[in-house]
Amino acid sequence: MSKGLPKRSEDYSLWYNELVKRADLAENSPVRGCMVIKPYGYSIWEKMQAQLDKMFKETGHTNAYFPLFIPKSYLSKEASHVEGFAKECAVVTHYRLKNSEDGKGVIVDPEAKLEEELIVRPTSETVIWSTYKNWIQSYRDLPLLVNQWANVVRWEMRTRLFLRTAEFLWQEGHTAHASKQEAIEETVQMMNVYAEFAEKFMALPVVKGVKSANERFAGAEDTYCIEAMMQDGKALQAGTSHFLGQNFAKAFDVKFATKEGGLEYVWGTSWGVSTRLMGALIMAHSDDNGLVLPPKLAPIQVVIVPIYKGDEELDKISVKAKEIMGKLRAKGISVHFDNRDTHKPGWKFAEYELKGVPLRIAMGPRDLENNTVELARRDTLTKETVQLGEVVLEEYIVQLLDTIQHTIYQKAFDFREEMTTEVNTWEEFEEMIEKKGGFLSAHWDGTSETEEKIKELTKATIRCIPIDRKEEAGQCILTGKPSEGRVYFARAY
Amino acid sequence: MSKGLPKRSEDYSLWYNELVKRADLAENSPVRGCMVIKPYGYSIWEKMQAQLDKMFKETGHTNAYFPLFIPKSYLSKEASHVEGFAKECAVVTHYRLKNSEDGKGVIVDPEAKLEEELIVRPTSETVIWSTYKNWIQSYRDLPLLVNQWANVVRWEMRTRLFLRTAEFLWQEGHTAHASKQEAIEETVQMMNVYAEFAEKFMALPVVKGVKSANERFAGAEDTYCIEAMMQDGKALQAGTSHFLGQNFAKAFDVKFATKEGGLEYVWGTSWGVSTRLMGALIMAHSDDNGLVLPPKLAPIQVVIVPIYKGDEELDKISVKAKEIMGKLRAKGISVHFDNRDTHKPGWKFAEYELKGVPLRIAMGPRDLENNTVELARRDTLTKETVQLGEVVLEEYIVQLLDTIQHTIYQKAFDFREEMTTEVNTWEEFEEMIEKKGGFLSAHWDGTSETEEKIKELTKATIRCIPIDRKEEAGQCILTGKPSEGRVYFARAY
Ligand SMILES: [Zn+2]
Ligand SMILES: [Zn+2]
Repeated sequence: MSKGLPKRSEDYSLWYNELVKRADLAENSPVRGCMVIKPYGYSIWEKMQAQLDKMFKETGHTNAYFPLFIPKSYLSKEASHVEGFAKECAVVTHYRLKNSEDGKGVIVDPEAKLEEELIVRPTSETVIWSTYKNWIQSYRDLPLLVNQWANVVRWEMRTRLFLRTAEFLWQEGHTAHASKQEAIEETVQMMNVYAEFAEKFMALPVVKGVKSANERFAGAEDTYCIEAMMQDGKALQAGTSHFLGQNFAKAFDVKFATKEGGLEYVWGTSWGVSTRLMGALIMAHSDDNGLVLPPKLAPIQVVIVPIYKGDEELDKISVKAKEIMGKLRAKGISVHFDNRDTHKPGWKFAEYELKGVPLRIAMGPRDLENNTVELARRDTLTKETVQLGEVVLEEYIVQLLDTIQHTIYQKAFDFREEMTTEVNTWEEFEEMIEKKGGFLSAHWDGTSETEEKIKELTKATIRCIPIDRKEEAGQCILTGKPSEGRVYFARAY
Repeated sequence: MSKGLPKRSEDYSLWYNELVKRADLAENSPVRGCMVIKPYGYSIWEKMQAQLDKMFKETGHTNAYFPLFIPKSYLSKEASHVEGFAKECAVVTHYRLKNSEDGKGVIVDPEAKLEEELIVRPTSETVIWSTYKNWIQSYRDLPLLVNQWANVVRWEMRTRLFLRTAEFLWQEGHTAHASKQEAIEETVQMMNVYAEFAEKFMALPVVKGVKSANERFAGAEDTYCIEAMMQDGKALQAGTSHFLGQNFAKAFDVKFATKEGGLEYVWGTSWGVSTRLMGALIMAHSDDNGLVLPPKLAPIQVVIVPIYKGDEELDKISVKAKEIMGKLRAKGISVHFDNRDTHKPGWKFAEYELKGVPLRIAMGPRDLENNTVELARRDTLTKETVQLGEVVLEEYIVQLLDTIQHTIYQKAFDFREEMTTEVNTWEEFEEMIEKKGGFLSAHWDGTSETEEKIKELTKATIRCIPIDRKEEAGQCILTGKPSEGRVYFARAY
């Protein structure tokens, strides 16, 4: 099954594309740039959604739903939003089809032209803030803490499954606050929620930081982000949280009566993560045998594969397997018993390796005799035989899954550390970005011109100004001008 | 807060619209025909989704995600699908905007015209079956049991919140089977899942039946449905399940290798329910004071309102309230303690009545003294004082919520029975549909012509041929021609 999966070292990009397809995660659809998320891939996304949704609700947010379409004129209301936001959008111009004259197909009815074109939402700030105007009158209506799970569309010429698709799924939080301070705190809180989710659930270490002006969201005063390192040395922005200032409140005239009797513009934030996280998850941990999933996001955490000849042996193994299944399920572990007689054990082993199932239990007639099972870890590809008389298997497995979760994180963390290099000269910068990749921690003079120049020369961008960077006077890597501290450069997805 | 909610008896339609808005369920958006589902409304929808999703998974289905857009040509591939399906669709013709010459706005870039227009999905059979072609080769790939939670768009000229909107949220199941029999069983199973959900969770009694040819889904061989009765005597189709035969398999050339070595077209089903269920839920149970929610779908099942003068009293009540909250939550009951000092108890009572919270606990200083609480049921608007020494409150409330759930169902059931009339003459039919409404159980000759004629004359349509109808020879209510059994007519949403 995994035979022929390209090697990462030979063609990382091809490896990724093939893995996504062969592990049944997603595929390209007949609609250019749009993907089909297949059931197995979607079940991972559902686990991500469930956990994120829980964390959003724990921090006081509720979900709502806003329209798919945005009137074209709305996009122009916030000046820097329309200026900075990509114009590649799906535009709805008509609202009716009719039968073609030859009776064989349908054509767009020219008489059903919209007076104002509608844009399929690329993000929902405009339509949401136009709604907030009616929801917010007084300080009593604040804070307004709303999230939406939705599909969005940004027309992309070059697409890659999960990483860049014309349509993708995401959540977008949109909050409104009575004070600047509170809005900034919300922005930072949501970056931290994202970081916690990435690290604890995706087993993905991230750098928390602030974007430079160049990389900031169009319409935001500050964009906070989490940045992850992929196995090929490229960075991936895994989530963003924007402090919008009063920009959208002013554009849509959203004011509130203060406690003191005044009338002020509301302060806003927005924050989002998308199915791009699936791409990050896949690229961060997987290997040449296939997917490696952290147990906390694995739809199947444990698979039991029987090794048998004939029905009698299978029956005996099944009794034992079902007993184990029951005990694992009682511990909240999702377990699958693959008793199909259409495939051989070796085929199944490869299949579950490809699909990233964290732990495999194999049981044959010898195991029944000896009261043992064989456990195989997906992350390390190691096996051990466990004597059932000596351990309580379900407790052992709970522990082992936790160990696997931490091991996967640690491996990614060590890799990220190894791939983070302090560079102090331009020669070093150029050499490192070309030969090693990863994050280059370097001084920068703080100007957009320098940032653009570096991008032109090396394709590296400033991923972020790390939140916890130390104050350190230095000279810009390119211009030699004074710098207050290091920022992270990388080539990025 | 609920002051001024129109009365059902005076203007049912206005009552509904106002209730939806004032109870914070939904509102019209700036985009014509599209709604904003507000946080409170959305939290009810989330409860529906969670339960339905559980039931789909328990019956072996998995979720996936397919593109928002459908190439225009796909719609013509299944002849009766394009023939019968409404052509009112959102059509994407361009993929880019650009800044207008005056620099003040954006215009559609005429150079970014799509070669083939894309339709925003009104339903996904076509794009899904074009995908299934690649997923299905052999009987081993069957059955394929997939569901999708998604937004869909059907351009509607006259819209009503939840009941008929241009964009709505729904789930659409799309399954593929090796045999006709299995596909029909799936179709019936999903109708039964919907009926169980409606009756047990929405407290909404439904009639299970089959649609007449006129009302059948375009592309289906049979459409099964559940039909509910609203308080104004109009019927509402709450869910449909379609047996697609081999129609879409043939249109998209989806064949499978049989066990016996043959090659056959696959059998299909599709089934869906939508945010229309929100409309049904609201209209079926609510009263002139506001929403009435069945406890199983209520985001807040119990609200505690303190009645106090001054902080000292509030503190004492809070201690007791928090103790009760803890015990209720331990029983899985969602409870809210409204200790806001910005609103009076009377205002809060009206507010939670408007929002349909099933049970209200009021606690004042006298209650503390006497060790009592006052319980008020939303469904019956009755109150009782409970002596805490005499009952275990949390157990009492678990029971009471169950009683409320059943009472709401029974009330709707009795109403539905009362509103179901056997009619045997055309005069009776005309009179009943005009004066009483409801379901008219009447004989019909089985022809589309008669059905259409009756619709023209009375605006009543055949809601369904009930699954459990008895064989009963009779004469068609309109034509007097022979009939094999009664069908249900009604005016409908
Ligand atoms: Zn741990
Ligand atoms: Zn019960």
